Amino acid sequence: MNTTINRQWRLASRPVGDIEESNFEYREEAIPSIQDGEILVRNIYLSLDPTHRIWMTDKPQYMPPVELGEVMRGSVLGVVEESKNSNFQPGDMVSGLLGWQDYALISTQNIRSLTKLPNPLPASLTTFLNPLSFIGCTAYFGLLDIGKPQAGETVVVSAASGAVGSLVGQIAKIKGCRVVGITSSDKKCQWLQEELGFDAAINYKTADLIPALAESCPDGIDIYFENVGGKILDAVLTQVNLNARIPVCGLISTYNAQEPVPGPYNFSQILLKRVLMQGFIVIDYMPQRDVAFRDIGQWLKEGKIKYTQEIVEGLENAPKAILKLFDSTKMGKLIIKISEEP
Amino acid sequence: MNTTINRQWRLASRPVGDIEESNFEYREEAIPSIQDGEILVRNIYLSLDPTHRIWMTDKPQYMPPVELGEVMRGSVLGVVEESKNSNFQPGDMVSGLLGWQDYALISTQNIRSLTKLPNPLPASLTTFLNPLSFIGCTAYFGLLDIGKPQAGETVVVSAASGAVGSLVGQIAKIKGCRVVGITSSDKKCQWLQEELGFDAAINYKTADLIPALAESCPDGIDIYFENVGGKILDAVLTQVNLNARIPVCGLISTYNAQEPVPGPYNFSQILLKRVLMQGFIVIDYMPQRDVAFRDIGQWLKEGKIKYTQEIVEGLENAPKAILKLFDSTKMGKLIIKISEEP
Repeated sequence: MNTTINRQWRLASRPVGDIEESNFEYREEAIPSIQDGEILVRNIYLSLDPTHRIWMTDKPQYMPPVELGEVMRGSVLGVVEESKNSNFQPGDMVSGLLGWQDYALISTQNIRSLTKLPNPLPASLTTFLNPLSFIGCTAYFGLLDIGKPQAGETVVVSAASGAVGSLVGQIAKIKGCRVVGITSSDKKCQWLQEELGFDAAINYKTADLIPALAESCPDGIDIYFENVGGKILDAVLTQVNLNARIPVCGLISTYNAQEPVPGPYNFSQILLKRVLMQGFIVIDYMPQRDVAFRDIGQWLKEGKIKYTQEIVEGLENAPKAILKLFDSTKMGKLIIKISEEP
Repeated sequence: MNTTINRQWRLASRPVGDIEESNFEYREEAIPSIQDGEILVRNIYLSLDPTHRIWMTDKPQYMPPVELGEVMRGSVLGVVEESKNSNFQPGDMVSGLLGWQDYALISTQNIRSLTKLPNPLPASLTTFLNPLSFIGCTAYFGLLDIGKPQAGETVVVSAASGAVGSLVGQIAKIKGCRVVGITSSDKKCQWLQEELGFDAAINYKTADLIPALAESCPDGIDIYFENVGGKILDAVLTQVNLNARIPVCGLISTYNAQEPVPGPYNFSQILLKRVLMQGFIVIDYMPQRDVAFRDIGQWLKEGKIKYTQEIVEGLENAPKAILKLFDSTKMGKLIIKISEEP
């Protein structure tokens, strides 16, 4: 890494259908110099998440879209390199939306969006992009606050081997539920059952979904943690119990669509089975995040939660690596390593 | 009315698409004689409701379907004609699922499903098929328990001139909301605004729905009381505010469909706007019905709630009259008058 320049990936064009590497433009800038009240962060790990696909469009969404020409937005772990702000010292570890770049200048007005990590770190640094990050909060609040699992109930989660899905299933197990994961390969199914303790797992690419769900969920489905949308939601709706709950966390199967995507054909089940379906975005839960981190931290310490991640080396590989979110090839959290940990 | 026979309409075939009169078969039977513990009710008013269309299918549903050859199910107000049960006296007014027939025999095991009306009646008898019935409960609990309206919020209701919709809008006005109704004619729009005090009304048959909603709901939509499904739900989803609530009471636009009906194309709004969507069936609220009847009774007395109904004379006309639920020609509650009030 050349420490005299700031490499960046900026949004060059909005994807039509699948993301292409050419949607990003490579730029080199001078490392910014800071003014009073500002700090400079050296980025270490960059989180790649399905929600990037939403930010890349200019459709109405839950945050402003990334503008064309802007540095691509992304959640980052970094280290304070220089500080002219009395609340931060060089060497402090921080997280925030610091973008696809080597260095981020944090202006005084943005300083509140930065989170200082505990010192010393209670777990490995990347934990703070995974169970002890917005990923963990997403799984925790979506399942517990909206899903409200009761011991003995059946919980189905889609994109089950993803960062969020794998945590959802493990938290549901902790709460005494039967847990069924839907994922994209036999290898992932095996990992869910053998490593994470899921009761059953379905490879949606090879299974006939409705009978597979019926077999894996002999008492019906009480909670479906929705990450994907499309046909999987439709199949799940045929098997839901009375008063089922469906936290809607993501609809990844629809993000790359070029034509309007219909909602579930079995929509009438929402009425007939009195289903509660509720969309949520983790930022709504940020004021309560410490509750999630306390519980998840404890479960990690007790070995009740495992997590996995795929770390791709080099900021230069980010535009290629993000495609892995949509091609079913990765397991767990996808992370770009930009620079070395201190 | 010949008082020596019991005229009945039985389900002869399941509708394919629209209900047809030939789906019902006319039968005459002897008036049943009662045993110890049983009562005989003379049916006076029969309620016709969109949910009949669901009961006529054999798809999975919230109650057992009506079997072929069985007397068609329907909610009825009647008078006890004979009683061998100490809890009921001849002359008592009752309501229950007594079917499309002149007389209903209530067996000892079904006696608990019968509700005795207050004596003397606090309002006209048909009120007990309308605001002071499951209709009122549907509007009351769907809006208040799921929708949770706050003063100043905007409430949109579809099928707004129907029995449930017209009550929903008026209760929302009582709660201090801006109320917009969607209905099927200019005449109905006028009635909603001039008689019931709706702030705006949209004729979906002539309006361009999305701009019409945007104009009628300048502050967006906080609650959408869903009676119809299909294109109206889709248009509403484009205008919902953050944390909007959608009680799903009915999906009448889809009941007669012969092909699978897609869910809303704007389904992703549920995620992006963190929408709560919840199906409900009024029978779930029956244990709390007295709360609804107390409030609605009070509002009726104070003139804060108006209702309308279309009464069709003669049980013989029921199979033809039920078509009015789906052809947009009726306003308010649709009722068949089977026999004279005592």
